[in-house]
Order: sequence, then structure tokens, then C-alpha cells
Amino acid sequence: MTLASTVNAKAIELGKHVITMTTKAGSGHPSSGLSLAHIVIMLMEKRMRYDPKNPSNPASDRLVLSEGHAVPIVYAVYADVGGVAGKDPSQLKKVTLDDLNDLRELDSVLDGHPNPAEGFPFFDAATGSLGQGLSVAAGLALAARLRGTDRRIFTIIGDGESREGQIWEAADFIVDRKLTNVCAIFNCNGQGQADVVSHQQSAEVLTAKLKAFGWKVRAIDGHDVKAIGSALNLVGKGGQPVAIVAKTVKGWGTASLQGKGNHGKPLKESEVPGALADLDAMYDKLGVPRGSSGGLRIHKPKGEVPPLPSGEIRLPSFDEAMAEAGLADAVAKNKLATRRAFGAALLALGKADERVVSLDGDVSNSTFAEYFAKKLPDRFFECKIAEQNMISAAAGLAAAGYIPFASSFAKFLSRGYDQIEMANITRANIKIVGSHAGVSLAADGPSQMGLVDVTYFRSFGTADDGRGRPACVSFQPADAVAAYHLTGLMANVTGMCYMRTHRPDVALLYDKNASFEVGGSSVLRQGDALTIVSSGYMISVVLKATEALAGEGIQCTVVDAYSLPMNAQPVLAAGAKTGGKILTVEDNYGGGLGGAVAEAAAITGKCTVQIMTCKRIPKSGNSPEDVLSLVGLTAGDIAARVKDILK
Amino acid sequence: MTLASTVNAKAIELGKHVITMTTKAGSGHPSSGLSLAHIVIMLMEKRMRYDPKNPSNPASDRLVLSEGHAVPIVYAVYADVGGVAGKDPSQLKKVTLDDLNDLRELDSVLDGHPNPAEGFPFFDAATGSLGQGLSVAAGLALAARLRGTDRRIFTIIGDGESREGQIWEAADFIVDRKLTNVCAIFNCNGQGQADVVSHQQSAEVLTAKLKAFGWKVRAIDGHDVKAIGSALNLVGKGGQPVAIVAKTVKGWGTASLQGKGNHGKPLKESEVPGALADLDAMYDKLGVPRGSSGGLRIHKPKGEVPPLPSGEIRLPSFDEAMAEAGLADAVAKNKLATRRAFGAALLALGKADERVVSLDGDVSNSTFAEYFAKKLPDRFFECKIAEQNMISAAAGLAAAGYIPFASSFAKFLSRGYDQIEMANITRANIKIVGSHAGVSLAADGPSQMGLVDVTYFRSFGTADDGRGRPACVSFQPADAVAAYHLTGLMANVTGMCYMRTHRPDVALLYDKNASFEVGGSSVLRQGDALTIVSSGYMISVVLKATEALAGEGIQCTVVDAYSLPMNAQPVLAAGAKTGGKILTVEDNYGGGLGGAVAEAAAITGKCTVQIMTCKRIPKSGNSPEDVLSLVGLTAGDIAARVKDILK
Repeated sequence: MTLASTVNAKAIELGKHVITMTTKAGSGHPSSGLSLAHIVIMLMEKRMRYDPKNPSNPASDRLVLSEGHAVPIVYAVYADVGGVAGKDPSQLKKVTLDDLNDLRELDSVLDGHPNPAEGFPFFDAATGSLGQGLSVAAGLALAARLRGTDRRIFTIIGDGESREGQIWEAADFIVDRKLTNVCAIFNCNGQGQADVVSHQQSAEVLTAKLKAFGWKVRAIDGHDVKAIGSALNLVGKGGQPVAIVAKTVKGWGTASLQGKGNHGKPLKESEVPGALADLDAMYDKLGVPRGSSGGLRIHKPKGEVPPLPSGEIRLPSFDEAMAEAGLADAVAKNKLATRRAFGAALLALGKADERVVSLDGDVSNSTFAEYFAKKLPDRFFECKIAEQNMISAAAGLAAAGYIPFASSFAKFLSRGYDQIEMANITRANIKIVGSHAGVSLAADGPSQMGLVDVTYFRSFGTADDGRGRPACVSFQPADAVAAYHLTGLMANVTGMCYMRTHRPDVALLYDKNASFEVGGSSVLRQGDALTIVSSGYMISVVLKATEALAGEGIQCTVVDAYSLPMNAQPVLAAGAKTGGKILTVEDNYGGGLGGAVAEAAAITGKCTVQIMTCKRIPKSGNSPEDVLSLVGLTAGDIAARVKDILK
Repeated sequence: MTLASTVNAKAIELGKHVITMTTKAGSGHPSSGLSLAHIVIMLMEKRMRYDPKNPSNPASDRLVLSEGHAVPIVYAVYADVGGVAGKDPSQLKKVTLDDLNDLRELDSVLDGHPNPAEGFPFFDAATGSLGQGLSVAAGLALAARLRGTDRRIFTIIGDGESREGQIWEAADFIVDRKLTNVCAIFNCNGQGQADVVSHQQSAEVLTAKLKAFGWKVRAIDGHDVKAIGSALNLVGKGGQPVAIVAKTVKGWGTASLQGKGNHGKPLKESEVPGALADLDAMYDKLGVPRGSSGGLRIHKPKGEVPPLPSGEIRLPSFDEAMAEAGLADAVAKNKLATRRAFGAALLALGKADERVVSLDGDVSNSTFAEYFAKKLPDRFFECKIAEQNMISAAAGLAAAGYIPFASSFAKFLSRGYDQIEMANITRANIKIVGSHAGVSLAADGPSQMGLVDVTYFRSFGTADDGRGRPACVSFQPADAVAAYHLTGLMANVTGMCYMRTHRPDVALLYDKNASFEVGGSSVLRQGDALTIVSSGYMISVVLKATEALAGEGIQCTVVDAYSLPMNAQPVLAAGAKTGGKILTVEDNYGGGLGGAVAEAAAITGKCTVQIMTCKRIPKSGNSPEDVLSLVGLTAGDIAARVKDILK
């Protein structure tokens, strides 16, 4: 039997499962799956080197299905090869053809879109929000290079999907980094959801674009087994990454799923027999003998990859790390920005453990990831001005066991919020650090200020990740000591973390050996009049306010609530000691820290909470104080509000 | 005097202002400004047709400075031509060379990055978060075409900035739409912030990319006046959009600002004289006579553009609009998804007023923007799978007086959150509609569900836009009637609005003539035991719960809080009538509706608030009920929680 016959026969047989499983589920994208039948079979049953019984082997080739909605064909092929899956990684079992009928059920590992966290370890990343897979592949390839393995990373991208700008960020990044083990396969079936795909995403224009971006391009018929095979053979062999631009037929083999209006629509029960008959007719049309779908052999990965370290990463002392980063003078002067202390901590972590890697978007001299970049260049990845790619590449690195810190301005990270949510669904162990947050940035104006970040990341933290942990943990250090230890904490907490740092230098508030914990807070000042809860840069402003108030005989408690979600009990206990009066202060829009305190307090109503946030869209101003005055957050504003509450 | 001499002399003289104004401000990006001196002068003093005394004339050519940090050179040239600016649009006055020294001051209109909302009407959009300007230009060009004017839109993009994927989304969109009046100028100075610009963003590779994307490309020396002039002359004359790839020198004319490490750094006071002397020396180097900087004439825009309509847009009756959209049957059956009613309302608005335009990202048959698309194709803009470009293009349309509705899945809109924030800073009058929100989407899984949207958009609404309005108003309709009227309300409210719609059909709850208002809420059910506050799809689940509870003798009040920020008074008043007990229910992560109610209640502590949100990252499930059970939000969960509170 020829390879072509076998693959065609499999395309027919597994294509039938794509149809029946989506009809059974009552939703899904059979037409997309059918367009990829030959390509996926050639990958998963012929060219990819992996062990279906141990897909997570770090030497294995990987597939990132960027076009996530086409996943039924992958599920069908995975069942065909006896691939294993399961919620409990220690108890994986074979996915059977019968299991396919549970597609999209609540207790199935076969989610509507690729979702490794729900028990499908063949994938490294949740996909389905389009345009992200090539960046994940890039991250996996960076990790493979660090680990010294020649695993190849295949990505399948829809033609319509290739309109997403992130694809082109990834295309640049992969060329920049010479990640020639990445292969991008473009599925040009010409049909989008609402309409046909633009000429700009046609096979011809895609080919021209990819060449201009520096890729080796092979344009093929995506149902031609031989052409697929020889194009895939190019991967990893030349000095360029390989792109395969494959013309395909959406709804291949079945008239009822072809043409416009057939995106994301399963067939009705009544239509299924006709569609299956259409596919059966393909045996004769293609001259393929029935029953020829057996007999492919999957090549196992070659070689062993030494394990990465495990366990807790220990930081040196604060002073030691600051000295190493050249910050001893700043410490001595008692003026040190939280962003610099983050940089020093990142360097210390990187020196302590090879799992720690750093990604930054052309602002490492502002975020101070540059301390790491200069000393550990092999594990620093300059992502240039392309934050979407940076986040998804970090997710790829995390999937391969690394602990990536992705840093940029807090504002610019919002460019990657969709990618961050996808990484959150993946339960990617990534650490996101946003600098220049809040209005203290001042002169650069609102286009550079992180103003919704606290609220955005806190929101994820209200949900559980399905493993008993908050889906995201956020930190906001008030001084360099806190920034240092919280960076260390981030590295050691499993799951997504966000830290917010600030531009201005601030005084050191904490003992250098102070300890910090997830959900923690610290009482910085005790009083009896009112409790002020704040964090980050605003702590220094709050302390100015409380000093002034103390001069008038008003003693306030100040709580630094540096972690969200917070353990509210000590915060409310502090409030209870000040007559139940709490004021929260933060230099961002609402729904963040104040929201968290109010939500906790409102459960019983025993404490009252007044909230001060940035009351107006900011603009440029010469100094933090100028802009704080515009948005109602100066020390004077805070003191006035305290007095108003105490009236 | 030759044109070249005049422009060179102006580059020298205005370049000095770039240096002195940034040094005076103590921050800013003089080196970037200097690299653009010749190009900006040739645009603003020679090629652009506009009236510096009336820059907002809709016939005028426009400049979008995508590379926002280079703005000092634009300010300097604007002062040179006597352009007007001011916080109060009715009292604009000339920007003087003296005014340049107020750069970045709190009371200056010369913000750190382009910021038209703070009084600089030469610009249409806040920029500074990179990669967005070309999309804004596309939106302005769409508007120009609708208005029948041949205004040209020039955009300046940094080389490093062109790594942002959105640039390439815009490049596709502009070719798709044949927006040949758009000109993209790439400023290839080779220096990024942290490092040199990648070869992938070199003039050579950019030229190849732009050609592959279908642009007419002219590569020039960006300090060669004649070359700039003749390249700009190509704009609007052929069948392709024109890209000018200009090699420039970052820090042109001054040794101390050239080379690595000079991004975003003003000179120290002590360095200024040397830098100014460097620039003075350019007279001789270029063979330009001193004092030759006068005498350019700016061409006024040609022709009058008829005004757009103004005033309130009136909707027809609910039944009339539903019939027009083919939904009469669904209304009769009392089952109609909010997303369909949105589509019907959008069509009705579009028929009522030519300002209403629609943009969608290849999902118009899911969001139901397709009703508009089919009947009003000239004002429907298919943006394909590129949400970033869609949002910024909408901001461009809004700047030209249109009322754009940009729709996609709520989840996919998060791809444009950075762009949404920039539009928010612009105070763009855009209407954003996210469908398939929350967990009721079910089978498609979390990659397609909007779960942070409520919280994200509410956050903006806690800030004032500087004109006495919330910076963003959000709506979440519980039924088709609400969706219909809220869509109408969005069109008539000035400023950014967000509406969240849902996939499933739901029963009609409201009287078809019910009225809705910004900040409003409705009591749907009266009881004495407890007040449940909810909105959107969850209202139907809450009503199921309260029916079951009523069967057990527990009568709850149900408040539909369909608008955020909410007027909390009636909500708290309802709570007060049920013994101060409030429960909130929403199908998203925390910090949204529950946060808003808790924040309001915690001010006095008179009501207690318990919050139910999506307690776990969702996964696929067959039905909304399945997924609601996973995340703890079924009618049964709600009823159990009510009973627990009442214990």
C-alpha cells in the first residue's frame, strides 16, 4: 500500500469521525477539520517524532494548533494512534474512537478548543482566540534550544487567522532568533466565518509576505500526500524557518460542508448519512482501496533530555543582590525604584536557577530586565516592540518547564491581554511584570500609564484555576525590599503572577529580611482614627498624608495590601480597631484594591470603606505631584478625605 | 531661495526648539523628533492641504503621528505655522514658540504624547502606545470616502514600531479597502529604545514587506527634501496606497543625541549649548544660508464638505425594527437572543442616521451586525480577523464625526484592549459590542467567552473623562427589548460605550416601550427576604432561582442593574427593603457588577453584599446549565446561596 493510499484512507475514515462527533456535540467546526485531514494525519502519524503514550517527553516534536477550532481532526487522529489523555497526569489513558463522541462534554478531556489544562497533554497551549499559536511555537523552540534538543514545533494557522497581526510579530521573532525548528503551516481553504477570506490572505499573497519576512516557503496542495510529506521534510534542514502554504478545501470530501456559510456548523443528524456517503465515495474518486488505512509507524523521539532543576529557588540577601546589580549606592541613599529592585531580583533568580528566563519588549532599560539581559544573555529574549508575541512566547517557554518573566510598561502589557487570558486558560506558569504603572509616571502622559492593570489582573484572581489556586496572583510593592522579595515569591508560586512596579525612586520602608506572602499585607503604621489601605507608590503618598494628619493629632493605621487577591481578615481586623473606618487609596481606575476591600467588608457591613482612585483620565504633568493633583490623589487630598470621613 | 534651503534651515531652527523644549520639560524624545524634522516640515509646511487656523476642517489633510513620542517636532512646526490649539474648542489660540517651553506641563495643551482631548486639535487620536496610527488613518480615510472628500491622511510610523502586528493588520485593511489616500511614512532611524532596531525592521526588509502587502513603496533619504517632496506627491494618484520608507538619522544634526542609548533622553542643561552649536554648524555643512527659514506657503483645503446630521437618533418601535430584521417570529415565540436584538437596533439606527457605521471582525453572522451589513453595505466595514485594527479604525471614524459600532465576540475584543484604552484617552465616541459573553456560550469553551469584560470596562467608568462624564459607560441587557433600547441609548450618549450580549435565546422580560437610562436599573420582582442584583443572561437564571424559592415561601427582590457605572441609590434602597441583604450574581470573573454594588454598599455599611461570580476558569460543556454548574452559578446554586444567607 502506498503512503498516499493509506493517508487518503485515513482522511476518509477519520473525516467521518469529525462529522459524527461534531453532530453529536451539536456544535463545532467540521468543515475546518476536514480541510486539515491530510496535513494532520501526515504530521501526527508520519512526520512528527513523538510517543503517543508519552506526548510530554521534552524531546518530542510538538503541534500547536493555532487554528484551534479545527481541533476535532486532531482528536480523531489522536484516537487513531492511541494517544493518551486524562485529568490526572499520573493516570493518563488512551483516547478511544468512542471517546470522540463525548466532544465538548463537561467531563470530557476533548474540549471545544485545544485546552491542555483540562486533560489533553498533546497540546501545550489553549488556543481558539486566533493568531497566537506561532508565538507559542516560538517559545517552545526557544526552550528546546536552551535544553539542547532538536525537537521540531509545527503550527497550523488558518488563512483568515493570518490577518491577525500577532502572526507577523511571531514571523519576525522566529527569523530574528533563527528558530529554524519551527514550521508554520497555513491552511488556505479560502472560507472565513462571515465571508470568504480576503485576497490579502490568499495563498499567493501569503507566500509573498512570508518570503519578504525571511521564511523559506513551500506552496502546496494540502490534500496531496506526497507534497505534504516533502514539504515537511524541509523543516529544520536549512538556515531559514519553513512555511508551508497549503491550499485546501474547507469541508473536504463532503459537498454539504463546502462553500460559504459552513464555518462552525455541524451537520444535522439527518444530513450525516449523506455526508458519510460523500466521504465513502472519495475512495473511488481517489482510487484508494477500502480498508487501507492501517500501517503507519510513528517515529519515537531521539535521545534523552536532561531534567530541569526543581524545587524552590532561593534568593541571596537583599544587600547582596542589590550590590550585584550595582545598586548599593541607591540603597545607601535610601532611594530606589521598585522597578530597579525587580531587575536585581530577576538577575539573582536567574543566577540561582536555569529555569528563570526573561523576555522584554525593547524597554529593558526602563523595566530593568537589562540587569538580567547583560549577565545572562542566553536566557534573555529581546522581543522588540511586539507585546502580543512576547506573552505567547512566554507561555510556550512555560509549557516547556521554564519560569519566564515577561516585562514591559504596565500600559503596553495591555496589548497582550487576550494572550494573557489564553495563557491563564493554559494555566501557564508565567510571571508578568508591568513597570511605570499608575499616574506617578507623570510627564509621559496617559498613553504610557498602567491604569486598568490592577483591576484586570485582580479579576482573574477571583476565579480558581481548578486546582485550588487563584487563577492569577498580583503583587504591588511599596518599596524596593518588597519588590525584591515579591519577585522571588513570584518565581516560586505556581501559576500566573503579575507584579506592578513604578518609575519614581522611593524610600525603603521594609526591613531587608521582611517576609512577604501570597495574599499578604503589612501594617506599616498604627493609629486609632481610621485605617488607610493602599499599596505600591501610593504608600509613600499615604505616609506623607498620615504624617501631616498626625501633626494635627489624627493617628491613622496604614496597611500595605501588596497582594491581590488578599487575605482580607487582617485588613478588616485593622479596620475594626479604627472604629470600622477604612479608606483605600490607589493610583489607577476603580475596581482594584478598593474593590477588593469593599467586597470583603460588604459581606458583613461591619467596616465601612471609602475608595480613592484616579478620578479623571490623567494627562501629562511635570511631576507625580502635579498629576496626582489632577486626579485627586495628593497627600493633601488624602488628608482632606480622612478628615471628611471623621467629621 | 530653494525649497531645500528653506526646509533645511527650518529643520535646524525648529530642531533647536525640540532640544530646548525637552530639556526644559526634563523628559521627552528629542532624538526621535530630530530624525523627523525634514519630513514633518515638508508635510506640515508644504504638502499637506490644511488651515492651521482651522485644523478640524473636514476637507483638510490630516497627520496621525503613530510614533507619538516624536511629537515635539510637530509642536515646533505647528508653532512655526501659527497653528491654533486650546482646551476650549471655541477659544483656540495660536501656539507660540514660547509655548513650546511648557511642554508636558499640567496646564499645557502640549502633552507628552499626542493628546487631542487635552486641547491639541491638529491630531485626531491619542497615540504613544505604538502601532496604532495607521489603523486610525484607515478609519479617517473610510470617513473621508463616505463624506466625498479627497483629504489625504499621512501617518508617521517608527521603524521599531513597525514590529507591532497591528501595523500589518492596517496594511492589509487599507489595501482591501483601496484606501489610496492613506500614506504611511516609515521613519527608519535604526535605533530603538533598549537596542538597535532589528534587521526585520530595516528599510530593506520593510520595503519588501510593504510590496508583498500590496503597497506602492518609495524608499528615500528622509533628510533629502527633494526626495521627500516627490515621494509625497505620489499619494492618492495611483491605484495603490503609498508607503515611504525613509532612512533617517536619530538625533539628526547633533552628535550628542545620536547613536545607542539616546532614546527618550533630553539633554542636560549643560549639554544644550553644544547641541545647538552642532545644529548651527549644519548651515555650513549643508550649504544653507542663515536666515533662510521663511516663506513657505501652506495650501488650504479645497472645497466644502457638507455637514453631517446632528442631534438625537430616534429608533422605530421595537416591533417595527424586529420585523425589519426578520425577527417577528422570534418575538412571537418569546425567544430572542440579545445579540439579535442588537443587530436589529443597529440596522434601525443606520437607517435613521448616516453617522451610524458598523465594523465587525469576520463574525457578523454571530454578532448580528450582518443585518446592517446586508442592508447598508456602504457603511459596513468588514475588518476580518484583526480586532486591533478594527478598534483603532473605529476611533478614526469617530474622529471624523461618525458613530461607529465595533462588534465581535466579547472575548476577542480583548485583543483590542490597548487600542480601546487609547480611544478612551482620545475620548473617541465609539460603541463597542461584545457578543457571546459569559459562560452561557458553553460548548465552545473558555477561549471564546468574555469573562473579564465587565470588570475591565467598568474600571474606565470609575474615572471622569474631564468633561463631567464617566470615561466609559457599559450596558448589559437581560432581554431583547433591553438590548434594543440600550443600543439606541449608546448611539445617543456621547463617549465610549460598551454593550455585552449573549448567545442563547431568552424570553422577553420588558415591556416593548420600556425606557432605559445611563446608570439605570429596574426592579423586576419584589420580595421581602433578600435582594438579588444581576444583569444580562444571568437574570433569566436568577428568575428561575427566585421562582423556586417562592415555591418555598421565600420572596426575593430582583434588580436588573443593566448599566455600569450604576446609580446605586435605587439598588441600595431595594436592599434596605429586604433587611439590608443583597446578593449579586454575574457570569464572569470578579470586580464587575458585584464589585460595583459592594463598593456602593460599603460606603455606609447599611447593606451587606454577597457576591457570586464565575468561581472557576470554565471549560466546555454541552449546555449553559452544564457550565454554570461547573462555575457555581446554576439556579440551584443561587437558591442555595440565598437560603444560606437567610439562615
